[in-house]
Amino acid sequence: MKVGIVGATGYGGLELIRLLSQHPNVEEIICYSSSQEGLPLDDMYPHLSGNVRWTLKAIDPEAIRADVDTVFLATPPGVSGELTPDLVKLGLKVIDLSGDLRINEPDVYEAWYKRQAAPVGTIRGAVYGLTEWQRDEIAAAQIIANPGCYPTAVLLGLAPLVQQKWIDPKRIIIDAKSGTSGAGRNPSQITHFSEMNENFKIYQVNQHKHTPEIEQQLRNWDESVGNVTFSTHLVPMVRGIMATIYAEANQAISEKELREHFAYVYETSPFVHVYSEGRYPATKEVFGSNRCHIGVTYDERTNRITVVSVIDNLVKGAAGQAIQNYNVMNGYEETLGLEGSPLYP
Amino acid sequence: MKVGIVGATGYGGLELIRLLSQHPNVEEIICYSSSQEGLPLDDMYPHLSGNVRWTLKAIDPEAIRADVDTVFLATPPGVSGELTPDLVKLGLKVIDLSGDLRINEPDVYEAWYKRQAAPVGTIRGAVYGLTEWQRDEIAAAQIIANPGCYPTAVLLGLAPLVQQKWIDPKRIIIDAKSGTSGAGRNPSQITHFSEMNENFKIYQVNQHKHTPEIEQQLRNWDESVGNVTFSTHLVPMVRGIMATIYAEANQAISEKELREHFAYVYETSPFVHVYSEGRYPATKEVFGSNRCHIGVTYDERTNRITVVSVIDNLVKGAAGQAIQNYNVMNGYEETLGLEGSPLYP
Amino acid sequence: MKVGIVGATGYGGLELIRLLSQHPNVEEIICYSSSQEGLPLDDMYPHLSGNVRWTLKAIDPEAIRADVDTVFLATPPGVSGELTPDLVKLGLKVIDLSGDLRINEPDVYEAWYKRQAAPVGTIRGAVYGLTEWQRDEIAAAQIIANPGCYPTAVLLGLAPLVQQKWIDPKRIIIDAKSGTSGAGRNPSQITHFSEMNENFKIYQVNQHKHTPEIEQQLRNWDESVGNVTFSTHLVPMVRGIMATIYAEANQAISEKELREHFAYVYETSPFVHVYSEGRYPATKEVFGSNRCHIGVTYDERTNRITVVSVIDNLVKGAAGQAIQNYNVMNGYEETLGLEGSPLYP
Amino acid sequence: MKVGIVGATGYGGLELIRLLSQHPNVEEIICYSSSQEGLPLDDMYPHLSGNVRWTLKAIDPEAIRADVDTVFLATPPGVSGELTPDLVKLGLKVIDLSGDLRINEPDVYEAWYKRQAAPVGTIRGAVYGLTEWQRDEIAAAQIIANPGCYPTAVLLGLAPLVQQKWIDPKRIIIDAKSGTSGAGRNPSQITHFSEMNENFKIYQVNQHKHTPEIEQQLRNWDESVGNVTFSTHLVPMVRGIMATIYAEANQAISEKELREHFAYVYETSPFVHVYSEGRYPATKEVFGSNRCHIGVTYDERTNRITVVSVIDNLVKGAAGQAIQNYNVMNGYEETLGLEGSPLYP
Repeated sequence: MKVGIVGATGYGGLELIRLLSQHPNVEEIICYSSSQEGLPLDDMYPHLSGNVRWTLKAIDPEAIRADVDTVFLATPPGVSGELTPDLVKLGLKVIDLSGDLRINEPDVYEAWYKRQAAPVGTIRGAVYGLTEWQRDEIAAAQIIANPGCYPTAVLLGLAPLVQQKWIDPKRIIIDAKSGTSGAGRNPSQITHFSEMNENFKIYQVNQHKHTPEIEQQLRNWDESVGNVTFSTHLVPMVRGIMATIYAEANQAISEKELREHFAYVYETSPFVHVYSEGRYPATKEVFGSNRCHIGVTYDERTNRITVVSVIDNLVKGAAGQAIQNYNVMNGYEETLGLEGSPLYP
Repeated sequence: MKVGIVGATGYGGLELIRLLSQHPNVEEIICYSSSQEGLPLDDMYPHLSGNVRWTLKAIDPEAIRADVDTVFLATPPGVSGELTPDLVKLGLKVIDLSGDLRINEPDVYEAWYKRQAAPVGTIRGAVYGLTEWQRDEIAAAQIIANPGCYPTAVLLGLAPLVQQKWIDPKRIIIDAKSGTSGAGRNPSQITHFSEMNENFKIYQVNQHKHTPEIEQQLRNWDESVGNVTFSTHLVPMVRGIMATIYAEANQAISEKELREHFAYVYETSPFVHVYSEGRYPATKEVFGSNRCHIGVTYDERTNRITVVSVIDNLVKGAAGQAIQNYNVMNGYEETLGLEGSPLYP
Repeated sequence: MKVGIVGATGYGGLELIRLLSQHPNVEEIICYSSSQEGLPLDDMYPHLSGNVRWTLKAIDPEAIRADVDTVFLATPPGVSGELTPDLVKLGLKVIDLSGDLRINEPDVYEAWYKRQAAPVGTIRGAVYGLTEWQRDEIAAAQIIANPGCYPTAVLLGLAPLVQQKWIDPKRIIIDAKSGTSGAGRNPSQITHFSEMNENFKIYQVNQHKHTPEIEQQLRNWDESVGNVTFSTHLVPMVRGIMATIYAEANQAISEKELREHFAYVYETSPFVHVYSEGRYPATKEVFGSNRCHIGVTYDERTNRITVVSVIDNLVKGAAGQAIQNYNVMNGYEETLGLEGSPLYP
Repeated sequence: MKVGIVGATGYGGLELIRLLSQHPNVEEIICYSSSQEGLPLDDMYPHLSGNVRWTLKAIDPEAIRADVDTVFLATPPGVSGELTPDLVKLGLKVIDLSGDLRINEPDVYEAWYKRQAAPVGTIRGAVYGLTEWQRDEIAAAQIIANPGCYPTAVLLGLAPLVQQKWIDPKRIIIDAKSGTSGAGRNPSQITHFSEMNENFKIYQVNQHKHTPEIEQQLRNWDESVGNVTFSTHLVPMVRGIMATIYAEANQAISEKELREHFAYVYETSPFVHVYSEGRYPATKEVFGSNRCHIGVTYDERTNRITVVSVIDNLVKGAAGQAIQNYNVMNGYEETLGLEGSPLYP
């Protein structure tokens, strides 16, 4: 199989290159860029030096069709909405890492993203690629809307509770923390080293674009889910997301029952691991891997459940899950090319 | 005035030395240590080199009484409960930075701290030193129980809401994050650089010792306050605490009214600053200073209020607030010796 | 005394504000900016909130003359060369933190800085402000060319050896490392958090602008000094410089003699501290302070001397030394306003 | 093939597990530990959770012989000297990551390591495994003394110059910087996060154990090499080494000639990459990979050559090079299992 990456110069694209280069069924990777056609990517990124030369090609759907079978879009907002219809018409499979195709209702998209939504037909044609919970739809899909980094951590943590209706659906509070790579490669004052190191910041309070994505999927599982409170913070580290999720238990539940249910629902999901009692994950425990590690507890004093879910935002939160979906779409083993263990320490 | 520091070799003691050295009314600082008597502190801490020599003296209440007027205790759990009665009997003023004298009910202390409480008489004789809200009691006190780092950030953020009864007192959720200096100077696997850098950890879920301290003070303001959910995380940075606090509004409230009330109650508190609309504090904005910066917002979608409160855990969360209390006890200007601006970047 | 800061929005300017705010003889600080006139600095820098309002004024020499007695220039290259003559003509004292007035020979400046030199008269009128070695000239000066951050660390480390002619003057190798704040406040790919954290970089190999400044001052002490090798590296931290300096001993020298000489020459310099045998400084030991800590050793196996010199690049390497010079120019105690101990940890 | 790891609980052992798990010719990995027999390694290291269970077995040479074909020793000083003779006698291949077998002369070892050397026979039976320069010997070896992290970076950078006799062999100065993982997993004051973050330290000035290892190999290439000056520093990051190497050119040499020679000698070495003119490597560009990236320049002003060499200390500096040697010993492709690209950012 040959695969294409559009938008290979960003961190999501780079991570696709890293992971696809190790994929046994991928024989060639071709990179496309609108702005830097002809540039050898390894000049820009010396960590790629010395292997193949990564020369960027222009974005031309017909030419892409001649080159590859599947296209990964790691593009800024707005691009995939325009590009996807052309690629799909030519018979290509498309896995879109941007947020453009994730929100089913155009007006919801427009309210949160403050930009025009993609054509409704394209949006509705896309399957939301939260692999662990959508395997059948993904297997049959031609277009995947790959989940956002925060929603991946949050939804994997909340799914067992919401599906089981064990919590008050109107009182979900999510306090999420991310490394800076989620903010992308463009330098800014916020992610300037001198102002980000030895610092911890909150941003986009009650306004993060991933809010409607989380709510939409939770409501697929239980339509009574209310608006969630979702806060996002920047941690002085590069990779990793932790979502600390608070919910009120509908009734007292034993710690054991809770944990066993989580373990049970993820038994057949090779990338999700549920911790034993009294243990909670740290982000470094999944660094560089496609894993999601989850800790969960019930507190009698407050009748609240706390779920702690961690992922590497660039892997399970972006490129890794995209490849996991690529595997499912093609009938490969779900873990193919993604077996790499976390880098520790 | 001459002051003593018992437990000068830990981070809290060191910060007392730094700040008291700049205090215009402190003419001499004498350091005491049980374990390292005779050791020059500057051999252990080269950042103190070249000024005075800091030779540690043994802990002997009579000798301390001969040396100084006020004693700061920056000691491990258990010490101040034993030492305070003797020092007080000799007429010394005591400011205790440990947790020993903060919890009024011995059984609550013992349940959370898993150790024997200090004598009830000593505990009840101590005034809880959250300066902004206890000035009169502090001015009259001989013993101060200096607040914990997390409670300081949390209580300053919640006071205006709880006192005003603007929020559901049974549904307070606090997600707190701290730099590693709060864990003290003793090396451990958790704070080993190779395992803490590029990592974000949660710890003591539902079990942190500061929980009863927070609840006790909140109930002083509104006795209907229920058990709070309190989570603590370690950030790969040295100094700084952020508390992100979630509460349900009892009724819709305008953003403006909310913020104006916060600004009003802290108008006469020189170290507390309330941010303008749409702005939230980052920990570095108070780094090295005695300030507490607060952002607050109301979200119509969820009817929830979010408060973001940041402090430097070693200053306003420990040594700085102790000196602020020392100033109030002695009738000095509250800001004396604490005017230093944050170090930025 | 009233003082002005031109270029207050950069890190050097900010540090001047922090330190001058604590200076007992400075009654008012007025900030000027060409680009952001009228802007309240505390809107841009929330760490300044809640004190005074810092409104930036336009740069107009006559108006500055009416406002203040001394002007600190913390401006980008090229500005102080133009501004200084006007300010001086009006009778103001000028302390220039930029590199514009440090190099006596215009052609040398132009070769390294790749821009036109300041007027020769202005350059020659400026005294190089390495305080510890120029006190008399500084006391009599109207214009100070405040040393660069790297040269300060390097020259304080090399002075005792070069003046004493104890080393081969043709074989000096300086391997210097700096935190990122030296690169200033403008975001760039190099100092983007995601690319700087968990990274160690070398930059401007054999081409750093501070090279001629180091050589010029060394040759003032011993004109036989040859061209030095000077390498600069970026450390994933914000503040701090370490210079590791290698030189060949002209003859075997005892460790003791070496160290005693260093201690002797800096005996009257309150900010310079020489470590005892077998101990070497780390950058954090001077963090936030105006100190320079030095370790030195002689290795019999190689007949080489290694000097390790650390400073805080924004304090002793910029704003702190500027204020130290200001004190000397005005006949104040050299340490006035600079007594603050390092922040540790 | 089945392989064993003795000392799997340290960082070197962990990295062997990570890399060998991806090695196509390794069908089973068995871990041994003297102190923690029976412990499941994944309880200690949650990043290993969810895959296989890693139960530690006791160290018994006969049993090891029954289990595996090759043994990697990632043990503290002193262990491999004792263990290797037994393992070798039983016909096992041994790759020793400790320093015990690297120094040919027992008295030199003892002078630098301050402990008794391994039996001379064992030492002399070991081949020094700097893969790029010893392929033939490694292919024929039964015992490999795997190079130290610093020597790997230094020797790959100096080899072309020393072999070519282009530099003064008596005047080599090496200024090396390392992340903290090189200091191992045991917590200490030096690597305590609160004291290591925002800090840059020098350590073991003129006394680092890797000094004789570097000199021995350089003298294998040119016996006139004198004692080198070798300084080591700790960077506030986890992984990565940079060696900045200074040497005097024996005669003026063109930049182009220099670089072309480096590129030529490493043309057949897939893991070594020489940068083009004006570019120098940063440690992150090899993070997590087995690569060594080298920049080199000649400075006419000083007649000195500067070489900048970076590796990931746990990969090319330890586990990765060990596996590279394992490949060569077994006649496999040198890159087998080591193709993973660096993790960036």
